[in-house]
Amino acid sequence: MENQELITLGNKIKYFRIELSLSQEALAFKCNFDRTYISLLERGKRNPSYKNLLKLSKGLEIPLSQLCKSTEEV
Amino acid sequence: MENQELITLGNKIKYFRIELSLSQEALAFKCNFDRTYISLLERGKRNPSYKNLLKLSKGLEIPLSQLCKSTEEV
Repeated sequence: MENQELITLGNKIKYFRIELSLSQEALAFKCNFDRTYISLLERGKRNPSYKNLLKLSKGLEIPLSQLCKSTEEV
Repeated sequence: MENQELITLGNKIKYFRIELSLSQEALAFKCNFDRTYISLLERGKRNPSYKNLLKLSKGLEIPLSQLCKSTEEV
């Protein structure tokens, strides 16, 4: 489970996480995810569900539309 | 598997599908999904993955960010 779309998404998740000065652990805690899940997501190794994308964007303090938009501007 | 977030997404999928004058079958064919999957999605009974959301938005001829944005304006 890895491909360019997931890698692009993962890079943007990492970008917004670092913008907030959050560790992977801290973001995972905010989202109620396992820390390893954030690491896997950021490396494009998970294909998150819509509901997990919503939780993630809440943790990143941006609308999901903004996270998606950032991936479209690559 | 049904809740307000998924129902809102499903309503927007239906809205954009009808805008294109596509049947559920026609949209499913464009996305390479089973027709029943579109019906389940539109009723909020599926939690689609990121990759399926990308396929769906391609079938609906809009960026995924626009589909997500529409759900945020409810």
